[in-house]
Amino acid sequence: MTATNAGRAVRPRGPSGGSESVLDKAVLEFNARGYDATSMEDLSRAVGITKSSFYHHFAGKEALLRAALERALDGLFSALEEPPGAEAPAGPSERLRRIVTRQVRVLMDELPYVTLLLRVRGNTDTERWALERRREYDGQIAALVQAAADAGEIREGVDPVLAARLLSGLVNSVAEWYRPGRRGMSGLPEEVARAAVEGILPTSH
Amino acid sequence: MTATNAGRAVRPRGPSGGSESVLDKAVLEFNARGYDATSMEDLSRAVGITKSSFYHHFAGKEALLRAALERALDGLFSALEEPPGAEAPAGPSERLRRIVTRQVRVLMDELPYVTLLLRVRGNTDTERWALERRREYDGQIAALVQAAADAGEIREGVDPVLAARLLSGLVNSVAEWYRPGRRGMSGLPEEVARAAVEGILPTSH
Repeated sequence: MTATNAGRAVRPRGPSGGSESVLDKAVLEFNARGYDATSMEDLSRAVGITKSSFYHHFAGKEALLRAALERALDGLFSALEEPPGAEAPAGPSERLRRIVTRQVRVLMDELPYVTLLLRVRGNTDTERWALERRREYDGQIAALVQAAADAGEIREGVDPVLAARLLSGLVNSVAEWYRPGRRGMSGLPEEVARAAVEGILPTSH
Repeated sequence: MTATNAGRAVRPRGPSGGSESVLDKAVLEFNARGYDATSMEDLSRAVGITKSSFYHHFAGKEALLRAALERALDGLFSALEEPPGAEAPAGPSERLRRIVTRQVRVLMDELPYVTLLLRVRGNTDTERWALERRREYDGQIAALVQAAADAGEIREGVDPVLAARLLSGLVNSVAEWYRPGRRGMSGLPEEVARAAVEGILPTSH
């Protein structure tokens, strides 16, 4: 929750709900056209306000991108934390399983924002900052995989850096095909976490 | 091999090696700028030939995209086939493990082509055709997962369609970070296949 509030604090104040709704629409536009190809004109048209109203909410296109990527990153980093009052995980391996579950849930809840984050290639300062934060996240996951290996919880010979990359790849690939409102998807976070621990093609015993 | 030859046959003949090299450079340009944002001028400049020489090799930008995506798809589909003379897999589960291994190898060998394929969003006929072929591929994988489940080789309760999607996501995510020439990566295809079967975070026994 702290991370999310921190994210909110940097957004400019506008009329109640105004900046949120502007951001939602801008993100859809960035995803449809690509950030580089989206002009302030495109954004004003998509949001349905004038360019000057737009600048009331955000200093410009890159400020919008920054606010959107912050929202995605705040969600991602919040997945690292246990919710208040939750029982402590039994060890690093159980903690990782819960993180993967929460990370998929954030992706499902914040799909357009996470999609935007995943398409970032590092063309602007803001994009490079977002890539840096993603690397930081992957580093924290790799450290947890190492801790799980040190605790003897996961099979010997697993490379923590590769495991962190594959975990991130497995989770993020959900954004390629998941669409909100699909039926029978409520168990998806747990299914992805199970696949991470037991295999996508687990051998029957 | 047949699939690869079929891909070659549709490419226009040029001077020896000419079309290959033009295609290689065009694909790098598409990946750097995005297909939509790349003009024939950009391509001519990147390849270092005049626009009219360009048209000697390819009818236009979309013909280039088609040839490039065919090469990626031919590689992908060739991963479904056992190499000539290989011992038959013990069952569908073993066959899947080998397919994942070969698919990662194709991705490593044909990285720029596979990267281009993975960024296709369906904006042109050629892109929609490529998405259709990718769905066909995922369908074949899902059928094999179903066969493995029917044979009692994989744990009950695994959803074949979800498993096919997660497999594809796991493999394709390698394109996000793998760069040719990195040391210590020769075992990557086997490691990814092992993660698919045993888990990215396999519990120690």
